[in-house]
Amino acid sequence: MDPYGLRRVISPAGVLPQRADVLDPALPLGEDELSIEVEALNVDAASFRQLEGAVGGDPGRIGDEVLRIVRARGKMHNPVTGSGGMLIGRVRALGPRHPAAAALRPGDRIATLVSLTLTPLRIDGIRAVRTEIDRVECDGEAILFATGLWARLPDDLPETLALAALDVCGAPALVARHVRPGIRVLVLGAGKSGALVAVQARASMGDDGAVVLADRSEPALDALGALGVADARLRVDATDPLAVLAAAEGAGGRFDLVVNCASVPGTEMAAILAAKDGGTVIFFSMATSFTAAALGAEGVGKDVTMLVGNGYAPGHAELTLDLLRRHPRLRALFEQRYAR
Amino acid sequence: MDPYGLRRVISPAGVLPQRADVLDPALPLGEDELSIEVEALNVDAASFRQLEGAVGGDPGRIGDEVLRIVRARGKMHNPVTGSGGMLIGRVRALGPRHPAAAALRPGDRIATLVSLTLTPLRIDGIRAVRTEIDRVECDGEAILFATGLWARLPDDLPETLALAALDVCGAPALVARHVRPGIRVLVLGAGKSGALVAVQARASMGDDGAVVLADRSEPALDALGALGVADARLRVDATDPLAVLAAAEGAGGRFDLVVNCASVPGTEMAAILAAKDGGTVIFFSMATSFTAAALGAEGVGKDVTMLVGNGYAPGHAELTLDLLRRHPRLRALFEQRYAR
Repeated sequence: MDPYGLRRVISPAGVLPQRADVLDPALPLGEDELSIEVEALNVDAASFRQLEGAVGGDPGRIGDEVLRIVRARGKMHNPVTGSGGMLIGRVRALGPRHPAAAALRPGDRIATLVSLTLTPLRIDGIRAVRTEIDRVECDGEAILFATGLWARLPDDLPETLALAALDVCGAPALVARHVRPGIRVLVLGAGKSGALVAVQARASMGDDGAVVLADRSEPALDALGALGVADARLRVDATDPLAVLAAAEGAGGRFDLVVNCASVPGTEMAAILAAKDGGTVIFFSMATSFTAAALGAEGVGKDVTMLVGNGYAPGHAELTLDLLRRHPRLRALFEQRYAR
Repeated sequence: MDPYGLRRVISPAGVLPQRADVLDPALPLGEDELSIEVEALNVDAASFRQLEGAVGGDPGRIGDEVLRIVRARGKMHNPVTGSGGMLIGRVRALGPRHPAAAALRPGDRIATLVSLTLTPLRIDGIRAVRTEIDRVECDGEAILFATGLWARLPDDLPETLALAALDVCGAPALVARHVRPGIRVLVLGAGKSGALVAVQARASMGDDGAVVLADRSEPALDALGALGVADARLRVDATDPLAVLAAAEGAGGRFDLVVNCASVPGTEMAAILAAKDGGTVIFFSMATSFTAAALGAEGVGKDVTMLVGNGYAPGHAELTLDLLRRHPRLRALFEQRYAR
């Protein structure tokens, strides 16, 4: 058993696959591994922009560069940006001791929910590079370890829609654990994860409680406002903690739960100040600074529970796809904005 | 009322005092402020080393440099390191609406538990610079805002001992909230905060449960082992997650709670892997990377609650001083190692 894929690490020895320079995708399938017949890579946006910048916008040359990286590293781990992406394909084979051995069958279409930076990958040929959606359609094989997350691609939702939602499915799942009826929730950042979080918060609290959206962009607020789940919208810059605090006070007071989905740095203090004493802040923004949060709360003597937004919670993929199914306006927003 | 001290920010306008370039320590005392007759600054170690490096080890020149910074900025906020420290002194005056108006009286000796980087300060003269303990003895006045944390200096403990413990008093206080009888707790890093956390964990769980210490240093483990609160010691490098996991498995299995008190970067995965599914990790290390924690847990599909170690919890100072009072071996360790 090799739940973290250590035996596939070629160099440096002894590190986890994500930190490895080179992985070996060619080993025979382990008893707790799963192999995937790859259909397409959804390359991380930062990585794709870097590739475009390096070789120009020509799809053929981008494809060559992807091939070169994957041949050199045994994974699509962009050495410049350090980022990966996810992939979709069909189950080729399942080791008998893989946790999904009973749940999946060869031929099932799945998306990987772990980064390509730790996914052993071999590419046999590239069929197309679709620069408008950062996608590389290719033939090849990928390996998932026993701890590697995946989601079955639903039959009833367009693939791009499902992928757009699965990309951030940890956020609504974690929020569902922390919302109780009657509490006040502030969603900082009205983007993709903010939309899922707002809808989940409303679903978890029912009509008893408040969901408030904050963003500096009026169009973003309008788009999420149209979901019909929020009690108020605050047009305010999350990098200005005092403006956010004033807006919060004006919208009924501080919040039991603040969910930081902002996409820019410097929003820790706004989240901390907008929370009640004894409240909770969940940081989903990848721009979060650990020290800014830890020292910021101490600096203002704020007793607030601060959570690192874990991208995984059991059942997160199904929970998120169900949100899209049950909420037509959310689905429409995703189709319009995120599922190109 | 001005709980965050905004009116004392000279530039840039509208930011919180910690982010300000210049504060005004000369304004008349606000109704929710507290003024302190300063006795000494305990300058942050990183800041003190920088000052020594910049002007040489001469105490007089270091003092001149401190004076220069405080005159320029209205606070002892080292512009190179960005760090501050804490101060001790006697209460000079209390605004009638300061939260401590009933608890403190002029003349009481207190330590500030918020950073000097946000504390308005005027220095009238320097009496001594004690380079061996990073201390600047001086006359002057400092201001605490309503949200600024402080602790009364105890009569029954040496001042250096109390200060060494108060410096990290948030850690045991937060741990006390998360330890229940019967759980298994791993303390990663056998330093100052690790010692307080281990003793608090044992106190909170009683005899029912396990406290395990991990550190790469044998002497550090021996020192904390002598406290008599730990069931096992693991000599292991916290930057090697697989070694920590193997050691954890060998010491009775994974942990309900992992408290990361390591002082080096790259220890997030060790803490995550050593926790049980459904367990909790509290990150107190200031070297914690937010993205390493968030993406690391997702990368191995680990359902773990990850907390940013808030330096403040109500009652944290008294809780920590009481630990020292009730635990003679802990007090001896602090006197020997940290209370120079």
